[in-house]
Amino acid sequence: MTGEFQLIREFFMASEWPPHVLLGVGDDGALLQTDATQALVVVTDTSLANRHFPAAANPFDIGYRALAVNLSDIAAMGARPKWMLLNLTLPDVDRNWLRSFSAGLHTLAKEHDVSLVGGDTTRGELAITITVIGEVTKSNALLRSGARVGDQIAVTGELGLAAAALKLWRAQQAIPDELHRAWLRPHAQLQAGQLLGGIASAAIDISDGLAADLGHLLRASDVGAHLDMDVLPVNPLLAEYFPGEENKLMLGGDDYQLCFTFAATHREDIARRLAEAGIGFSVCGEIRGTSAGYLVTMNGQLQDGFSLAGFDHFGEVNEG
Amino acid sequence: MTGEFQLIREFFMASEWPPHVLLGVGDDGALLQTDATQALVVVTDTSLANRHFPAAANPFDIGYRALAVNLSDIAAMGARPKWMLLNLTLPDVDRNWLRSFSAGLHTLAKEHDVSLVGGDTTRGELAITITVIGEVTKSNALLRSGARVGDQIAVTGELGLAAAALKLWRAQQAIPDELHRAWLRPHAQLQAGQLLGGIASAAIDISDGLAADLGHLLRASDVGAHLDMDVLPVNPLLAEYFPGEENKLMLGGDDYQLCFTFAATHREDIARRLAEAGIGFSVCGEIRGTSAGYLVTMNGQLQDGFSLAGFDHFGEVNEG
Repeated sequence: MTGEFQLIREFFMASEWPPHVLLGVGDDGALLQTDATQALVVVTDTSLANRHFPAAANPFDIGYRALAVNLSDIAAMGARPKWMLLNLTLPDVDRNWLRSFSAGLHTLAKEHDVSLVGGDTTRGELAITITVIGEVTKSNALLRSGARVGDQIAVTGELGLAAAALKLWRAQQAIPDELHRAWLRPHAQLQAGQLLGGIASAAIDISDGLAADLGHLLRASDVGAHLDMDVLPVNPLLAEYFPGEENKLMLGGDDYQLCFTFAATHREDIARRLAEAGIGFSVCGEIRGTSAGYLVTMNGQLQDGFSLAGFDHFGEVNEG
Repeated sequence: MTGEFQLIREFFMASEWPPHVLLGVGDDGALLQTDATQALVVVTDTSLANRHFPAAANPFDIGYRALAVNLSDIAAMGARPKWMLLNLTLPDVDRNWLRSFSAGLHTLAKEHDVSLVGGDTTRGELAITITVIGEVTKSNALLRSGARVGDQIAVTGELGLAAAALKLWRAQQAIPDELHRAWLRPHAQLQAGQLLGGIASAAIDISDGLAADLGHLLRASDVGAHLDMDVLPVNPLLAEYFPGEENKLMLGGDDYQLCFTFAATHREDIARRLAEAGIGFSVCGEIRGTSAGYLVTMNGQLQDGFSLAGFDHFGEVNEG
């Protein structure tokens, strides 16, 4: 509708389009050119103020993060992002806020050549829905369902930084830059996902926490696993700010790293590819049969409470 | 996230997928197969309770309408819808509500073979964002920007029924079925859009009201027009319930009919195609040069207040 398009034009519209955007914002829909050899990958995510980010956060970070969490899903499919849509619900039209939000969104979009091709604005409590459409060569798509008994389990980067930032924020304490960035400007592992396509057997991005997300992957693949938390690197800030709580934070979620599995024969190839790109990763477990269940070792001890049945208490909308 | 997927699985997930859905709901993203000869068309729309529909409306209607308004944009591009995403923000999990909402959504989706391939649920004030991805043969895409001086202007169906229903609802009066359906179960003109592809010079769907939406088309095409409201059919219910206000209601919006333009030489061909499909339409004006401006005749008189500058007071988000 009119007012919607006016705001989108003013704050978000590109001045020129790449060749695969035949028609961007401004008509009834966007017109996009696909590549015949590719499959589309479509992801979407809604972020609500004070549920997924503090309403008072820097609007640059809010825009950056809203796109990053979607790019993380694109990464977990091994795909390249190409187009995005933005549905923005705003309590009022604050032009300074919009400028900063748009700058955050577009900084990340530009880095990965993602074009904003549609969206709308409505009035209400602050809510941001971003939808990203990407492409992947069909045989390179990383699914959750491909893990096989005997595969290794690995994780990119470090875990727990966002959870630590959130904990400091809730306690109204100062947040070190590195933790703040991990929390509100997460780095979607797009390059890792693309490098793993065709080699890794399965992948998922870590939004709910490693144990929960690996659980999703296990259920999709119909396998069990042994996850060894003790071999994962622990960021020194976790030990400094929350000694003794490192493992809990590392299962806290919002990491946006990739958890992936691969046949042991591919280990060297994967290590070489990721090392060449400067991407750290840690092998932290092994896929087993379902009869072995879901075992998690922490501080040298097998933990209770992890099962193949799921971790739905991490979910956002529960009953009752 | 976990809880989100659980609800989407339970209430919305298909039991089988068409061949072009390589992977639907349940992974990090959907994997879709495109046809090499086609371009993608992507549209999105957010509906908020008590802004776009009454919160207490039948959830079947809420689901139906939320998809219909998106299909209307797909229709206005001359495209065929194929896939959709649903972002649902709910105040609580009411299973009866969800069942009925899903039935409304899927009744319409099934009619047009649209597969739900992604989405999420969050907790908050009721809000529904639907994104639809479709395909169109590039040369058949109906843009807003193709109207040329001398083209005829036409509109499908009848206008004003949804606006009349809304007016009765606000006055807490009983709403005749025909008006109620037009308001909450609008019929997206997908068949008309596809029949007009490659023949009509421009098209737009009527959501803001005929005069406003034709204004968008005129600005996109950089032309002027004379619109004659007096030749449009007036539904007898408008005259019965709101005598003297017919024209105002017919400009009220939410009609989801198509307004399109075409070269006079195509008139017979268009009339034949639409008649064969049982789709009514009315020729109601002519495209002129920008120097002629935007003229609107109503009750035999030229009206003030219509200009090529726009109708932004119809928009939803305004400043201040």
